[in-house]
Amino acid sequence: MEMLESSGVLRDGKSLILAYDHGLEHGPSDFDPAPRSRDPSHVFELANHDAVTALAVQKGLAEKYGDTTDANLLVKLNGTSDLWSPDDYYSPQNCSVEYAVEELGADAVGYTMYAGSDHEARMFEDFRQVQEEAHRRGVPVVMWAYPRGNGIQENPEYSGDTDPEVISYAARIALELGADMAKVKYPGGRSEMKAVVQNAAETDVVMSGGSKSSEHEFLESVESVIEAGGSGLAVGRNVFQREQPCDILDHLGEVIHREKSASEVL
Amino acid sequence: MEMLESSGVLRDGKSLILAYDHGLEHGPSDFDPAPRSRDPSHVFELANHDAVTALAVQKGLAEKYGDTTDANLLVKLNGTSDLWSPDDYYSPQNCSVEYAVEELGADAVGYTMYAGSDHEARMFEDFRQVQEEAHRRGVPVVMWAYPRGNGIQENPEYSGDTDPEVISYAARIALELGADMAKVKYPGGRSEMKAVVQNAAETDVVMSGGSKSSEHEFLESVESVIEAGGSGLAVGRNVFQREQPCDILDHLGEVIHREKSASEVL
Amino acid sequence: MEMLESSGVLRDGKSLILAYDHGLEHGPSDFDPAPRSRDPSHVFELANHDAVTALAVQKGLAEKYGDTTDANLLVKLNGTSDLWSPDDYYSPQNCSVEYAVEELGADAVGYTMYAGSDHEARMFEDFRQVQEEAHRRGVPVVMWAYPRGNGIQENPEYSGDTDPEVISYAARIALELGADMAKVKYPGGRSEMKAVVQNAAETDVVMSGGSKSSEHEFLESVESVIEAGGSGLAVGRNVFQREQPCDILDHLGEVIHREKSASEVL
Amino acid sequence: MEMLESSGVLRDGKSLILAYDHGLEHGPSDFDPAPRSRDPSHVFELANHDAVTALAVQKGLAEKYGDTTDANLLVKLNGTSDLWSPDDYYSPQNCSVEYAVEELGADAVGYTMYAGSDHEARMFEDFRQVQEEAHRRGVPVVMWAYPRGNGIQENPEYSGDTDPEVISYAARIALELGADMAKVKYPGGRSEMKAVVQNAAETDVVMSGGSKSSEHEFLESVESVIEAGGSGLAVGRNVFQREQPCDILDHLGEVIHREKSASEVL
Amino acid sequence: MEMLESSGVLRDGKSLILAYDHGLEHGPSDFDPAPRSRDPSHVFELANHDAVTALAVQKGLAEKYGDTTDANLLVKLNGTSDLWSPDDYYSPQNCSVEYAVEELGADAVGYTMYAGSDHEARMFEDFRQVQEEAHRRGVPVVMWAYPRGNGIQENPEYSGDTDPEVISYAARIALELGADMAKVKYPGGRSEMKAVVQNAAETDVVMSGGSKSSEHEFLESVESVIEAGGSGLAVGRNVFQREQPCDILDHLGEVIHREKSASEVL
Repeated sequence: MEMLESSGVLRDGKSLILAYDHGLEHGPSDFDPAPRSRDPSHVFELANHDAVTALAVQKGLAEKYGDTTDANLLVKLNGTSDLWSPDDYYSPQNCSVEYAVEELGADAVGYTMYAGSDHEARMFEDFRQVQEEAHRRGVPVVMWAYPRGNGIQENPEYSGDTDPEVISYAARIALELGADMAKVKYPGGRSEMKAVVQNAAETDVVMSGGSKSSEHEFLESVESVIEAGGSGLAVGRNVFQREQPCDILDHLGEVIHREKSASEVL
Repeated sequence: MEMLESSGVLRDGKSLILAYDHGLEHGPSDFDPAPRSRDPSHVFELANHDAVTALAVQKGLAEKYGDTTDANLLVKLNGTSDLWSPDDYYSPQNCSVEYAVEELGADAVGYTMYAGSDHEARMFEDFRQVQEEAHRRGVPVVMWAYPRGNGIQENPEYSGDTDPEVISYAARIALELGADMAKVKYPGGRSEMKAVVQNAAETDVVMSGGSKSSEHEFLESVESVIEAGGSGLAVGRNVFQREQPCDILDHLGEVIHREKSASEVL
Repeated sequence: MEMLESSGVLRDGKSLILAYDHGLEHGPSDFDPAPRSRDPSHVFELANHDAVTALAVQKGLAEKYGDTTDANLLVKLNGTSDLWSPDDYYSPQNCSVEYAVEELGADAVGYTMYAGSDHEARMFEDFRQVQEEAHRRGVPVVMWAYPRGNGIQENPEYSGDTDPEVISYAARIALELGADMAKVKYPGGRSEMKAVVQNAAETDVVMSGGSKSSEHEFLESVESVIEAGGSGLAVGRNVFQREQPCDILDHLGEVIHREKSASEVL
Repeated sequence: MEMLESSGVLRDGKSLILAYDHGLEHGPSDFDPAPRSRDPSHVFELANHDAVTALAVQKGLAEKYGDTTDANLLVKLNGTSDLWSPDDYYSPQNCSVEYAVEELGADAVGYTMYAGSDHEARMFEDFRQVQEEAHRRGVPVVMWAYPRGNGIQENPEYSGDTDPEVISYAARIALELGADMAKVKYPGGRSEMKAVVQNAAETDVVMSGGSKSSEHEFLESVESVIEAGGSGLAVGRNVFQREQPCDILDHLGEVIHREKSASEVL
Repeated sequence: MEMLESSGVLRDGKSLILAYDHGLEHGPSDFDPAPRSRDPSHVFELANHDAVTALAVQKGLAEKYGDTTDANLLVKLNGTSDLWSPDDYYSPQNCSVEYAVEELGADAVGYTMYAGSDHEARMFEDFRQVQEEAHRRGVPVVMWAYPRGNGIQENPEYSGDTDPEVISYAARIALELGADMAKVKYPGGRSEMKAVVQNAAETDVVMSGGSKSSEHEFLESVESVIEAGGSGLAVGRNVFQREQPCDILDHLGEVIHREKSASEVL
């Protein structure tokens, strides 16, 4: 938590991460609803919004646009394209911790973990090195904690990767493996989110924004994350795909940093 | 043995290890019978009980809660989630020996070995590095010696992973590969346990606590371990899932450290 | 862009790369249409043409012929033979960045990336090391951005590896992973090329010359690349397989560096 | 040969190696015929017998019992359990050369090589590092030269892993790869053994003792090894499974070091 | 070429390499036609013949017999046994460049490359390290350029691994990957050999001797190699399997170093 505060990813215990790695993970089509979002300059400027505590991007954008923003940089260390159709989920490391910190000036690093995939063991081993190298440098680690793959699909105990039990388990894995923050899917309700937060214990929890939804519905889910003891939100499409991305950032700031309700804000 | 004594994992030749890696290995459902066990603070405090010689946890808990206990820290170096369904058993290394010792202040390290799995060779190689790095630093190595997988299941000579011959073999592997202590399943009786202890020779043997059972039955098995020349017990659920975990720790201390019988204690 | 300019691969924002790795990638039969092209001395001399900003070759040619040309050297770091028929596309690294820069005097390095292949993850990891080592030495990285393999073929959304969306995605991957320049296939038209250039953002884009075609058709496609904001061309067979390779280099210089139209030039 | 002599594994050109890695390779059942053999202290004391030139053990025994014997230590660097049933033979490295020499005081190191297995290439590569690291430290390398696996079984030219041609080939591989001594199965007769010794050339050859047999038959085979120019014997079960292990060691000393016949000795 | 001359593998542009790694690659049966060839001392002495420019052997022979010859040592770095039947061709590295040069005094190193095999990529990567390490130490690299495996067998364009086009491609791969000399199979005629030499460009080409054939036929093929611009021959069985190996070496010296015809010599 100290590392998260000193990095700025957490500000007084709250976090609003603007995520912008969709060009790699989903492809350019994610920018079609708001074409200017294709230009990194636009999103790096958005990240200057006061409510944003960190901007999460891949190495290439950090390297070429990092100087154009005042936002804290959360360099995402692994990722794949959506062109790839592997036998089961795996996300290769595209950036070393050393490069992120020394060359890109990363304030924090992020790593996607697909527990439950046939490649879980390999990812655990990759994560070991990331976590240790980052902490030795005093840099916090955010785990994109997304269980998925054959281990989840073939297990009749779980309804899928949004099953609240799976999300609680994901948050616990983040704690056990030494992540400072877990980015998880929304488990569907306040009480489920509270369980997630309890299982994460000292590891902070933020909700993943997901695909674009109605503003009210979206803000309500963020509100319930805060009420459940979560630290906030990591959001991409629900901001940059909107016509007025600053407005939604204003509102998110109210809900996350000032703990207002969705109804108060809208 | 000297390293085990100087680390505190052994105290006058006896050991009571409180194990708490269930959040990773089994998932949060292991905490449901006693919800406060979900909070690491609770279990790290339990570990202050005088009978406990070491607390076995994964890296993340050691890092975030290590300062909150006076217990000797046994950092478990490998582990997987239960979400994963691999082709055969393997446990990836989540923490390096160097990190455990230098950053987490580990007094000892632990490693799960699945001899008999299709991945035995890979685990032997992983263990080589763990064992050598730990001993170079004067830190003892506890092997969770759990043969399982295709090599056991398909071998008509063995009835399974609790076959006393398999457990004796497991203990011998711990000796041959250079572990200081073997954590094994209970082979079912005193004479079988004695054979296990003899095959382990200079390597100390502790029984694995397993799932929660009746207190009397549990203490009797611990008593027979001590009588057979074993060094004690590594226990998790049989302590933290109980309503009065301190009581069972009191009793275990009597049986292990004072060599009382289960009947005397209860 | 600064690294590309200082390396000479870009000259005032424009690039004409003479590529000559066909002996490895396609085999000697590529030299049959113009037998003198078999001799590296001939092509290394061609690269002295004023319009050429860099010569792209494998390690062996750079090592044995590098001193015979004044051209900037772009050492291609990976490659395979056409004798090989792998399960899916992969290109092994035949030259380290350190060797290319220190021993061969490389001004820039190149790497072929087959996103969409079953081996995408492995290539992303290989590329990480290449990109980081090159940038630490101040040397720019050109990605041969060629999505192909099972992930493309089996995806009904895409018509193949020349689908404009696939090429746009390829250019974006080059940006996200930290390449300075993307070498892509021609997406078929000016507006498609413009989309590619926009998705690449700060990463420069050059068209890949492909197999030999009519001079007019070829120059028109180059013209449209320049109009679309592309930086130029990487070309091999369309130069060295011609009877008058200097003439086509003259014409390409006019179109790329002086922004003349194909019609003006011919 | 010089390294073998200076290490003591060879004494005036002859060798009697007491092998005791059966607890790992075969499991504790190998100790049942003579239960005291289960206790390493017993066998380490046996190794003090004057006829023994080296004691071959795995890392764990060397580490915990090495100080209890005056015998030269031959640390076996790889090995597997018999619980494992791999697709084809492979033996992982359980001890590094550096650890064996620096921490365990090894006078020599041993490595099992399964040429003919599907994993031959991997073992050749493992052996490269072992051989080079050992020789750089002036420590000789004994190869347990045991061709087996699919390459042997499926080859109609060979009758199996005791085919004299296979054993000759094994000895030659030991020479070609740089082993100082080859431990081979007995090829069945004196003339076959002579061929093995000739193919090994400068690499010394010792016979592997194998499972327990009648003393006369056993000594006769040892006698023929010496007559064929072999250097001696590596023996385990044929010593420690006997009621009077010192007697057989006396006899072996006569045959190996004094070149007496089996008939003279018995 | 400079490195080849200074190493002595080339003498005034010509080369006669005596190859003697058959004990590993083919097994001891290759020595049956001339039993004394089994003894490395014999062949190392043969290598003192004035016509021989280098002796090519595996690590073990270089280490144990290197001091017994005045020949230049070409240490072969990879190799397999013939006991092995892999899924497709691969040759593991049995000796590091560092060990060959520093410990064995190698004047040159050799590496077998199976382009076209399913393992081509892995071999290209292995070769990268060999080539770079050797050149950094000023030591030339000879590639045994032998395309084979599934990529060749399944390709209807090629008639097999002696197809002249395949051999030309092999020579080009040697050039492109940075080998100083390519050892290739004889493509069947002078004009085919000339094409091979042209495709190799600055990389020298020697013919591989192959299995024993009539002396006249053999010398004629060597003569045509020299006439085609090749540098000479690497030969094993065609020398050491003969009754008068010195005679054939005399004759080869005349053809290679004095450019005499086969008819003049016989």
